[in-house]
Amino acid sequence: MQKTSIFGIGQTAVREHWGMGMRDLAATAILDAMADAGVEGADALYVGNMLSGTLASQEHLGALVADYAGLRGIEAVKVEAACGSAAAAFRHAMLSVASGQVDTAIAVGVEKLTEMSGMATTHGLATAADADYEASMGLSFVAINALLMRRYMHEYGFKKDDFAPLVMTAHANGCHNPNAMFQKAITLSQYSKAKMIADPVNLLDSSPVADGAAAVVVRRADATPQSDATPVRILACEIATDSLALDNRRDPLWLEGGAKSVAKALKTAGRSHGDIQFFEAHDAFSIMTALSLEASGFAERGQALKLAAEKQFEIGSRLPIATFGGLKGRGHPVGATGLYQIVEAAQQLRHVAPDQIQVADATCGMTQNIGGSGATVITTILEK
Amino acid sequence: MQKTSIFGIGQTAVREHWGMGMRDLAATAILDAMADAGVEGADALYVGNMLSGTLASQEHLGALVADYAGLRGIEAVKVEAACGSAAAAFRHAMLSVASGQVDTAIAVGVEKLTEMSGMATTHGLATAADADYEASMGLSFVAINALLMRRYMHEYGFKKDDFAPLVMTAHANGCHNPNAMFQKAITLSQYSKAKMIADPVNLLDSSPVADGAAAVVVRRADATPQSDATPVRILACEIATDSLALDNRRDPLWLEGGAKSVAKALKTAGRSHGDIQFFEAHDAFSIMTALSLEASGFAERGQALKLAAEKQFEIGSRLPIATFGGLKGRGHPVGATGLYQIVEAAQQLRHVAPDQIQVADATCGMTQNIGGSGATVITTILEK
Repeated sequence: MQKTSIFGIGQTAVREHWGMGMRDLAATAILDAMADAGVEGADALYVGNMLSGTLASQEHLGALVADYAGLRGIEAVKVEAACGSAAAAFRHAMLSVASGQVDTAIAVGVEKLTEMSGMATTHGLATAADADYEASMGLSFVAINALLMRRYMHEYGFKKDDFAPLVMTAHANGCHNPNAMFQKAITLSQYSKAKMIADPVNLLDSSPVADGAAAVVVRRADATPQSDATPVRILACEIATDSLALDNRRDPLWLEGGAKSVAKALKTAGRSHGDIQFFEAHDAFSIMTALSLEASGFAERGQALKLAAEKQFEIGSRLPIATFGGLKGRGHPVGATGLYQIVEAAQQLRHVAPDQIQVADATCGMTQNIGGSGATVITTILEK
Repeated sequence: MQKTSIFGIGQTAVREHWGMGMRDLAATAILDAMADAGVEGADALYVGNMLSGTLASQEHLGALVADYAGLRGIEAVKVEAACGSAAAAFRHAMLSVASGQVDTAIAVGVEKLTEMSGMATTHGLATAADADYEASMGLSFVAINALLMRRYMHEYGFKKDDFAPLVMTAHANGCHNPNAMFQKAITLSQYSKAKMIADPVNLLDSSPVADGAAAVVVRRADATPQSDATPVRILACEIATDSLALDNRRDPLWLEGGAKSVAKALKTAGRSHGDIQFFEAHDAFSIMTALSLEASGFAERGQALKLAAEKQFEIGSRLPIATFGGLKGRGHPVGATGLYQIVEAAQQLRHVAPDQIQVADATCGMTQNIGGSGATVITTILEK
C-alpha cells in the first residue's frame, strides 16, 4: 500500500451563511486547500455530505461541486455516512491514492442546514437513525441522545452538571478559533440554566446546526510538495459500524463501532494510546463525548466525566479534546464536520493553531467522526 | 496497484417489490453474492443508492445494510452519484481492494421507488439535475431527455420512429431474463403508438421505475476462489464528470463525460474498442442510448440510429447492447442499475446467460452507468 499525506487544507468559517449556497461553500474550501497545497488541479473529488437531497432537493453533488470548483470532468462522487460523511469521504480519498490509481485526490465535506426551518432540519437529522424503528416512532436525534444521557446518569450515578466540564472545555477552546461559530466561553451557571430541549439534554449539551465546508488535498506521502505547507502523514483512517437502532445494541452505553475503529486505526498506524497527544472528539452531544472517550480507550467505562472534572481534557493537560472548539463551539455542519476535525488536527500538527489552543510539541493526533448515535465511527490518526 | 476480480454476484428480480423493504432487498442481493463467492464475511461494504433519504427518510444506509446483511461492524458507507450510484460504489470496492487495505469488499446497489407516488419519484429523480438552474425551473428528468431527443432529431434529421430499433432490441433481450421487469417484445407499431410523456419522449422511450438490488464480491485477482464460480477480472472502472446543467455544456449532444470515462477505461485496461464484445448501455431513455454509443466511440456522431437500423446492436451482431434487457426491459432501479449491468456482464463472461441472449465466446465486455443527463459516467471493462 502506498503511504499517503495531506498536502493542503482549506475551510470556510462555520456560520449561518445566508450569502453562500452549498456549491459556493464547497468550492471555497476546495480552492483554499488547493492553494495551500500549491496544486492547480486534481484527479478525483470525494464529497462528504448528508442532507443535500432531503433539504435542498440536490443529489449528484460529486459532479456538481467538481464543476463549480473549476474541476469539471474529473472523477467525483458523494460519500454519505450520516454525520460521519466527511471522514468517510476522506477515507475514500486516502484509499484512491493508496491504490495507485489516483495521484491527487481532494476530500471535501459540505453542509448547508440553516436555510430550512428547524423542523425540516430535525426531520433531516433523524434520517441518520433507523427510519422504521426509531424515527417513525417519533424519536428525533436529540431524543435519542437524551435516552443515552439519562441511562448513563442512572447507570453511573452522575448528576446533570457533571457533564458541564466537557462542554466548558469545548467552548473555551472555540474562543480562539476564528472559524468557530461560537467564540465565547460558558460558565457552569450558564450550563445549569440553559433551556431544556429533551430532558436531560439542554441547549448547551447540543451542538449548533450550521453551514460550512472543509477540504484537504491528499497525495502519496513521497510526492514532492508544491508549496511551503508542511505535509501531514495519514497513518490510518478506519471505519467501523454498528446497528443504527439503539435497541438493537447489546449495550447502548458502549460504542462498539468506536472501540473497533480505534483498535483498527491504532493497529494500522502501529501506534498506541500513549502516542496520541490530542483527540478531536465528536461532541455532537455531551453524552456522545463521554461515550466516545470511553469506547476509544481514553477513559474507563463510566469514568469520562471524572477525568473531565479533573481537567484532563483541556489544552495543556494529558489529552486535549475539541481543540478548536469541537462540534459544540466550532459548530456542526453535519456532513462537513469530519473534515473540520481533520483540518484542525493538521493545523495542530503544523503548529499553526492559535497560541492559546496549540498543543505543545504536537506530533501525533487522532480525530473521530461519528455517524448517527454511533452506527458509523471513523477514526483517523495523523502524524507530522 | 493490486489487480482485482469479481468472485461472486447476486441480484433480486427487478419488480415492484411490495413485500420487501430496502434493507431486505439489499441483504438478499448481498447474501446471494456471498454464497456465490463462497465467502462468509466481508471487510467492507459500499452501498450505491440515490433516493433513500428523499423517498424513505433513511440515510446512513452503509451501516444499516451491513447490519441487516449479517455484517454488523464492518466498514460500510453509501456512495451516491445519482443514477450512477451503483457503479460508483463498485469503483470504491475495487479501489479499496486495490489499495491493499481491504481484503474482501462488497458493492451493492439498491433502490426502492415504487412505494411513493409518481410525483414524489419525479421530484426525487430531478435531484440528479441542477436544483437551482434546471429542476427549480420545472424541468423534470423526462423533460430534460425530451429536450435532448428533440435537438438530436433536429440536428441529424431523424424521425421519432428511428429510435424504435434501440428500444425493440432491449425489450427483445429482456424476454429471456427472468429477473427483468418486462419480459415481452415490442413492435414498431406499439412503439409508434405509445403514450406521449414529454414530446418526443413517449412511454417506450423511458425506462420503468422499479425496485431491486444487485451485488458483487470483489477480492484481489490472485485470491483463492472459495467456490466454483468463475472469477471475472476487473480491467478498469473509471469515472468522469461534466456539468449537471445541460445549458452549461459546450455541446449538449456530446457526452463529454462518456468520452472521457471510456478513454480512461480503455487506457487503464490496455484494450481497444475492437476488444469489446458487448456493451451494457445506460438506456434510461432511448436518446441517452444513442448519445452514449456515440460518445463511447461505438458509433460516429449522429450515426447510432443508423447502426441500430442495420441491427448492429442485437445479440449475434457486432456489438450487442442491453443484453439482459437493459434499463428499458430489465428495469431501472436507479441507484442499483450500475451493479445490475456489472452482474449481467459477469453472467455473459461466465457463459451462464440464458441461451437466447448469451454473447458467443464472450471474453471481454463493457458496462456504462450514467448519472443525470450525463454529468457522471462510469465505464467498466471486465474480462474472463
